Amino acid sequence: MNTMEILEAVKDGRLTTEEAAIRLKTAPFVDLGYAKADTHRKIRQGSSEVVYGAGKTPEQTLGIVRTLYEEDGCLLITRCPKESAELLSENIKDVEYDGISRICTVGRIPRPSPNSLVCVVSAGTSDMPVAEEAARTAEALGSRVERIYDAGVSGIHRILSKTDVLARARAVVAVAGMEGALPSVVGGLVDVPVLAVPTSVGYGASFGGVTALLSMMNSCSSGVSVVNIDNGFGAGYIASMIDRRSAPL
Amino acid sequence: MNTMEILEAVKDGRLTTEEAAIRLKTAPFVDLGYAKADTHRKIRQGSSEVVYGAGKTPEQTLGIVRTLYEEDGCLLITRCPKESAELLSENIKDVEYDGISRICTVGRIPRPSPNSLVCVVSAGTSDMPVAEEAARTAEALGSRVERIYDAGVSGIHRILSKTDVLARARAVVAVAGMEGALPSVVGGLVDVPVLAVPTSVGYGASFGGVTALLSMMNSCSSGVSVVNIDNGFGAGYIASMIDRRSAPL
Amino acid sequence: MNTMEILEAVKDGRLTTEEAAIRLKTAPFVDLGYAKADTHRKIRQGSSEVVYGAGKTPEQTLGIVRTLYEEDGCLLITRCPKESAELLSENIKDVEYDGISRICTVGRIPRPSPNSLVCVVSAGTSDMPVAEEAARTAEALGSRVERIYDAGVSGIHRILSKTDVLARARAVVAVAGMEGALPSVVGGLVDVPVLAVPTSVGYGASFGGVTALLSMMNSCSSGVSVVNIDNGFGAGYIASMIDRRSAPL
Amino acid sequence: MNTMEILEAVKDGRLTTEEAAIRLKTAPFVDLGYAKADTHRKIRQGSSEVVYGAGKTPEQTLGIVRTLYEEDGCLLITRCPKESAELLSENIKDVEYDGISRICTVGRIPRPSPNSLVCVVSAGTSDMPVAEEAARTAEALGSRVERIYDAGVSGIHRILSKTDVLARARAVVAVAGMEGALPSVVGGLVDVPVLAVPTSVGYGASFGGVTALLSMMNSCSSGVSVVNIDNGFGAGYIASMIDRRSAPL
Amino acid sequence: MNTMEILEAVKDGRLTTEEAAIRLKTAPFVDLGYAKADTHRKIRQGSSEVVYGAGKTPEQTLGIVRTLYEEDGCLLITRCPKESAELLSENIKDVEYDGISRICTVGRIPRPSPNSLVCVVSAGTSDMPVAEEAARTAEALGSRVERIYDAGVSGIHRILSKTDVLARARAVVAVAGMEGALPSVVGGLVDVPVLAVPTSVGYGASFGGVTALLSMMNSCSSGVSVVNIDNGFGAGYIASMIDRRSAPL
Amino acid sequence: MNTMEILEAVKDGRLTTEEAAIRLKTAPFVDLGYAKADTHRKIRQGSSEVVYGAGKTPEQTLGIVRTLYEEDGCLLITRCPKESAELLSENIKDVEYDGISRICTVGRIPRPSPNSLVCVVSAGTSDMPVAEEAARTAEALGSRVERIYDAGVSGIHRILSKTDVLARARAVVAVAGMEGALPSVVGGLVDVPVLAVPTSVGYGASFGGVTALLSMMNSCSSGVSVVNIDNGFGAGYIASMIDRRSAPL
Amino acid sequence: MNTMEILEAVKDGRLTTEEAAIRLKTAPFVDLGYAKADTHRKIRQGSSEVVYGAGKTPEQTLGIVRTLYEEDGCLLITRCPKESAELLSENIKDVEYDGISRICTVGRIPRPSPNSLVCVVSAGTSDMPVAEEAARTAEALGSRVERIYDAGVSGIHRILSKTDVLARARAVVAVAGMEGALPSVVGGLVDVPVLAVPTSVGYGASFGGVTALLSMMNSCSSGVSVVNIDNGFGAGYIASMIDRRSAPL
Amino acid sequence: MNTMEILEAVKDGRLTTEEAAIRLKTAPFVDLGYAKADTHRKIRQGSSEVVYGAGKTPEQTLGIVRTLYEEDGCLLITRCPKESAELLSENIKDVEYDGISRICTVGRIPRPSPNSLVCVVSAGTSDMPVAEEAARTAEALGSRVERIYDAGVSGIHRILSKTDVLARARAVVAVAGMEGALPSVVGGLVDVPVLAVPTSVGYGASFGGVTALLSMMNSCSSGVSVVNIDNGFGAGYIASMIDRRSAPL
Repeated sequence: MNTMEILEAVKDGRLTTEEAAIRLKTAPFVDLGYAKADTHRKIRQGSSEVVYGAGKTPEQTLGIVRTLYEEDGCLLITRCPKESAELLSENIKDVEYDGISRICTVGRIPRPSPNSLVCVVSAGTSDMPVAEEAARTAEALGSRVERIYDAGVSGIHRILSKTDVLARARAVVAVAGMEGALPSVVGGLVDVPVLAVPTSVGYGASFGGVTALLSMMNSCSSGVSVVNIDNGFGAGYIASMIDRRSAPL
Repeated sequence: MNTMEILEAVKDGRLTTEEAAIRLKTAPFVDLGYAKADTHRKIRQGSSEVVYGAGKTPEQTLGIVRTLYEEDGCLLITRCPKESAELLSENIKDVEYDGISRICTVGRIPRPSPNSLVCVVSAGTSDMPVAEEAARTAEALGSRVERIYDAGVSGIHRILSKTDVLARARAVVAVAGMEGALPSVVGGLVDVPVLAVPTSVGYGASFGGVTALLSMMNSCSSGVSVVNIDNGFGAGYIASMIDRRSAPL
Repeated sequence: MNTMEILEAVKDGRLTTEEAAIRLKTAPFVDLGYAKADTHRKIRQGSSEVVYGAGKTPEQTLGIVRTLYEEDGCLLITRCPKESAELLSENIKDVEYDGISRICTVGRIPRPSPNSLVCVVSAGTSDMPVAEEAARTAEALGSRVERIYDAGVSGIHRILSKTDVLARARAVVAVAGMEGALPSVVGGLVDVPVLAVPTSVGYGASFGGVTALLSMMNSCSSGVSVVNIDNGFGAGYIASMIDRRSAPL
Repeated sequence: MNTMEILEAVKDGRLTTEEAAIRLKTAPFVDLGYAKADTHRKIRQGSSEVVYGAGKTPEQTLGIVRTLYEEDGCLLITRCPKESAELLSENIKDVEYDGISRICTVGRIPRPSPNSLVCVVSAGTSDMPVAEEAARTAEALGSRVERIYDAGVSGIHRILSKTDVLARARAVVAVAGMEGALPSVVGGLVDVPVLAVPTSVGYGASFGGVTALLSMMNSCSSGVSVVNIDNGFGAGYIASMIDRRSAPL
Repeated sequence: MNTMEILEAVKDGRLTTEEAAIRLKTAPFVDLGYAKADTHRKIRQGSSEVVYGAGKTPEQTLGIVRTLYEEDGCLLITRCPKESAELLSENIKDVEYDGISRICTVGRIPRPSPNSLVCVVSAGTSDMPVAEEAARTAEALGSRVERIYDAGVSGIHRILSKTDVLARARAVVAVAGMEGALPSVVGGLVDVPVLAVPTSVGYGASFGGVTALLSMMNSCSSGVSVVNIDNGFGAGYIASMIDRRSAPL
Repeated sequence: MNTMEILEAVKDGRLTTEEAAIRLKTAPFVDLGYAKADTHRKIRQGSSEVVYGAGKTPEQTLGIVRTLYEEDGCLLITRCPKESAELLSENIKDVEYDGISRICTVGRIPRPSPNSLVCVVSAGTSDMPVAEEAARTAEALGSRVERIYDAGVSGIHRILSKTDVLARARAVVAVAGMEGALPSVVGGLVDVPVLAVPTSVGYGASFGGVTALLSMMNSCSSGVSVVNIDNGFGAGYIASMIDRRSAPL
Repeated sequence: MNTMEILEAVKDGRLTTEEAAIRLKTAPFVDLGYAKADTHRKIRQGSSEVVYGAGKTPEQTLGIVRTLYEEDGCLLITRCPKESAELLSENIKDVEYDGISRICTVGRIPRPSPNSLVCVVSAGTSDMPVAEEAARTAEALGSRVERIYDAGVSGIHRILSKTDVLARARAVVAVAGMEGALPSVVGGLVDVPVLAVPTSVGYGASFGGVTALLSMMNSCSSGVSVVNIDNGFGAGYIASMIDRRSAPL
Repeated sequence: MNTMEILEAVKDGRLTTEEAAIRLKTAPFVDLGYAKADTHRKIRQGSSEVVYGAGKTPEQTLGIVRTLYEEDGCLLITRCPKESAELLSENIKDVEYDGISRICTVGRIPRPSPNSLVCVVSAGTSDMPVAEEAARTAEALGSRVERIYDAGVSGIHRILSKTDVLARARAVVAVAGMEGALPSVVGGLVDVPVLAVPTSVGYGASFGGVTALLSMMNSCSSGVSVVNIDNGFGAGYIASMIDRRSAPL
């Protein structure tokens, strides 16, 4: 019932004013004590609830998944510890787990539309866990994903040899640590939004990803926006959001 | 001529190997000495060239605009000093200038499509120059823009009273200084990408926008990505890119 | 004996000038060698001594507690390691220990006054240890506490559904990591002091709580002041101080 | 009309559902275009609206003051430029302006209650503008204020000679730049909340107040919380809030 | 006289032990009171003395130049204010001054060797003063210089169209502000040392060149080393040092 | 009267208990309203009051000087603006002012003892104002000072040629900006305390003296301690303190 | 085949346009899935591929080495874990491993030319692993290396006693942690490029090498450029590059 | 032999010029390969060699101690791991080890002079290891030490009750973590140099001692200088240097 329906019901006497006051105030979530699981977010935000798996016990994760899964077709658990994934597998069906990205999905991954394409580009081998988090997030939300890995700017021919794939993407995720230069180069090659993800890859003055983050914030390419260090999920989430809403060319 | 066409021409003898080598190497820009004006970017990136007006003399800006304007319908000069705008007005027709955002446009602003909608939300009165830079950039690129200003989170009812407008937006720009909390709240209210712009508004530990930037990087809302401090242009550019490519709902 | 009493005693010959000089200088504490336990602080500051349990051996903690407990009705040990709590339990009665907040109390917790109310609000599940430290500190000092947990701003309806409880609070503690936006929103909903506690929850550019701290320092809501990262104790201490001294409405 | 009253009116037919929906949504502010002046905040937050004068034209400030003043007995403009104060004086009566703190008040300052007492302590002569901002804010909101200035810790006898005044305060504001040590010492002398205000006074490694801010965040005294650098207003506002709500001792 | 010659002279009685002691101790500089001008550095370091012109009065600069110029063929004054250059021109012949780079030379610039080539590459128009400082420094020290300006990575074809020139360079200076990505790309294209110069060009999170500096420190290309922000002189000096000592290929 | 004397007077009836209580509490300072001038510091700390001249009006400075000068032989005003020095000269005799260090002295500078020697070493010409502040402070307090300027480590022979002077010093002040390496080298050459003063000389990553400060904090030489950036006064004050208390060798 | 050769082959019919297009696009690397091994870099950059051993499994390292080693005479693995070195030794011949620097070489180290000389200077014993990484890198690339270790500036005679060796070097690597002053002193003693390497040696305000890095960036010696913290490899690589290309004196 | 003696010997034929050249160049240290042990430092710097024990193997420490101990009466090993102390004890006599400060001494600690007095003051119990490092260093170098521990400024009476001891000290070491306010208070109570030592004690915004360091750098007390975080040794070394050279009062 939305506000208008509640008010109509009050007018019609189907609802007392007290009941209406409660309904107008009640938030659409189930309180589990340790978390408020948001069962209506799918309707409100157009995609499934995403559970942040880190820092939760396997049992807590299972509890949240059980509450939410009743209403959702596909559920995504990010930064999911192996132990949590195993407990989920033992209790729920259709659980898939990728150890590199620590992405766990429950339920059927939706089939992408024909023109769907998110490109996930990464600079070095060590950036792969973050890149995979982005790629698998976008896939779980219904996008088709092409991966272009180990394409850092010190060997510029590596990314240039992939311009044809990039040209078809409807959103690009660019993942890099160290000096974080990849999104600027990619941003100059495409005309779609580039979601830049700094990674904590590097040492010394890379400051756990801060240098890459600052570098990306200052990108001289116009279409680049930035998410938090190692936040592959965030970039994949936004890239898929853009991809799925794009009109066919 | 693209690579295949050049190669075919070599094979057919229409082009010598020397000419072909030059064509394969020649970048599609006009060298003005003080700048390399990119005349093909419209084709390559799907939008008009944008000129960064700050730090250029009025004469340099005029020179660049003249070179680029031959091929473009609408040209955008950001951070345009008043003096440059005046020189442009005297020499070129269809020049419009907004003193608050320092946005200058040359040529006809394209008419937005029926469903186009970018929302630009700002926290306080002082954020207006940056918010306007975002709004006018998106308009110059062909989007329809709704402005929701002075809607900071310390009076949460102000943004909540605008949820109906937000719900129709295809991309949102959220502009805030100080603690930069607005994008997180907005991100929880919509299911489209939110481009967060930290501003240098504030004092003391706001560090000229750094606190807002960091705050936005750590947003607990999934759809938020961030551009540089005071970079209204960047956010408006990306928001419009997303808006114009979105499928009708 | 206060200064006037000492001087009177000198005048009357009840005290030699040497004794008086010593009394005027002697600080009201018991020197344990490894710590100066302050037995008069209750009188001077109106509440029991608080012992910082971290970095002390169980034996040191027991020694300090024994010295102080003779004069105090209720003693609070913060950041108390499990081992210290166990040793206390074995040697002293009326010891209570909460493993999440690591708060240990010795003696009877005072009964709150009828109008007493401190609200402890937290943004996410992971902020709970800090929030509990604040809540249990306020309770140990004599306040009644209402907890509103997992009410972060990305789902703004969660905190809005609790405005009635917030309205009755005489002081609010707002606990948040990541972007630290919760205190600004809460500060706009209440007209009592809000004690903001940044937590080290987050990753990447959250910098172990620094981003939340800076965000809270820049709050656009007027009633917000800030304590150190993860300092739930400090916020609970001040909130209870305000609560207990408030006049009945 | 509150929620229950609106619902009753719907039930009784005094209000259409459409009107009710609007009332439930309409925020209690007047939109001036350049600002949303909050006319109900006095009721909601128990004190007058405060206008941040910096960065607003004298005309904008006058406009906001005129809108708000209809319903308020006393209005406070902080960081008010001299020009704005002069324009206000010419157009509105009962305007008072202090050039050091840049505090401007419109209307009658409320008379403090008999037991009211806020102490404002500052470390050095240069901290006076910030200390005065705190003092005058608290006075404008209805508190009695005692000033103890130039009492920095390098001459510890200066603050110790004032312990009797400090002992009667119901809240203390402690203002210091450089190493920011004053709030820790003060916090050890009183048993009421201490609002610490770092100032930008200092040079070199004082970093415009950051050192003082960090120092205060790490205070070893339990009752200390911190506001932004140079934010005398914020500290005075909270101190007065605590003072006015305190029960007579 | 070197140490052995001094000792031989002592042995032969040509020098008293006192004279020898003085010679062994006397540094090869002329003390002007306000500066110790190093007349032997040319021999010791193989190039002319370089005078840092900023922060010196025109008269001081003239004094230093007069002292040093007696023994040197070409003298370089960096960051030379216009006033100093003018005073030099009026008093000494063969003075050349470039207002953009603020480089002033006194005497004849040496003719470069046939194979000499330093490439100075810059990212944007605003980097030109720093790039010119590097270029003119290298020229004053005897190198031939090729300039490749406005070749930032957001239009990667601009630098790729110049690979033939880069391939002949014996050292490269790469100048960039904002994200500072250019040296990484250049470093992957050449097999000679790349001297990276961060510039203070940019705004917001560019932090006056710090982001570019950090980015360059983390370059994934092996041949890149970095000098201070805006230190075009330093990079030009080292690049020329490498160039002039390189063997013909 | 000290504590014992006051108590004796109470015992003897020469002092009432009330008078005694006041004397025990009264701080030995004169309250000028805008400052608490400490007239007893000379006795308590063994040297004259030092007035920080910056941020005070010429009239305020004159007022403080007049209050303090009654009891002191020599008064030191640091960071004294030219205007304040001029007003002092017009109203008080024996005023000396040095425009470079902005040190102003009132009264007769004490004559140093025969063995007194403080060495003030500085790295570059631009460090001279800070070095002079240190030197003139030490002189005003009664030390003999030797200056060794422009002796930075890039020409190591410059400081090595002065080892004989350094060897006689009883305390050394080492002043340097940029990389701040001078104190480490000096600390290895002497066996007396080295007071290191970072200066704000430099550009780019010198961060206004922060790099020099950090460098000095990490000195590998054991006898080095550090004062604030540009705090020549502090270093000269401590060096003179050590010098004047040193036993003749 | 270079571009011209490919175009000639198209013209002659030896290559179809499709084949040519592929060749023009195909990057000269072998895609191993987890890495793109660059088999042509030796030709393009004049030295062997360098493999970054950290963060790779022994099996991955072996796979990359096998791919690259077919075409290279000597292969360098930096930051090579002991386990990877052992697996390499078991499977490939001519493997050498140094546990301190974690440098592993595969194949024959080239013999240096007669005049080759790189000096590696380090400040303290703890800097040795980084210094050795530099030294062994330069040796593996074909340079002769002299080591001058434990020669920090607090005992300046230690580096001064080695000026004769330094004078013959064609490039110098200067390695230091803590205050990082060594490169400035060395830079004043030689007239060849000095590659400065900050190390993470130190504690407290050394910030894991950041202080040394900043100090080196601000070196007052002209020939100093800087690489990342602990990046001995980078400095050795560049120093050897300079050394091998230097003309005989 | 000093320079003059060497030269005399050359003149007299007692020394060949070659021998003299070597003597003039030879540094007074013994090269152990992994360290250059400085056997003459005692003469040059007036105190025993100090060995930094951290990061050295027990065997390396033993080797260095054996080399140095032949010429020294008392040797100090700082940050000495327990294992190293045990190996030393087994092989050398007169070894003493303190586990809290990790200070190890070899040989007889010198007896202090009658007036010798260094005060070591610390703020909290957790600062004790650093305070003890300072105290034991000063004792090992020949000073008498008084310890005043757990005297932080939040209970200001604790340090005030010790003013009589402080008044007799010839140098004071003040050790504090968290807000680092203690040295400022102590500096106002004494008229001798105060060596401030920030400690890494604290959490959150104490940043491992950085806040305390910055606070101490900005001390408003004139006699305070600062050493690195946790550098108790450095402060004790300088304090003892000052103490031992002080003239009897």
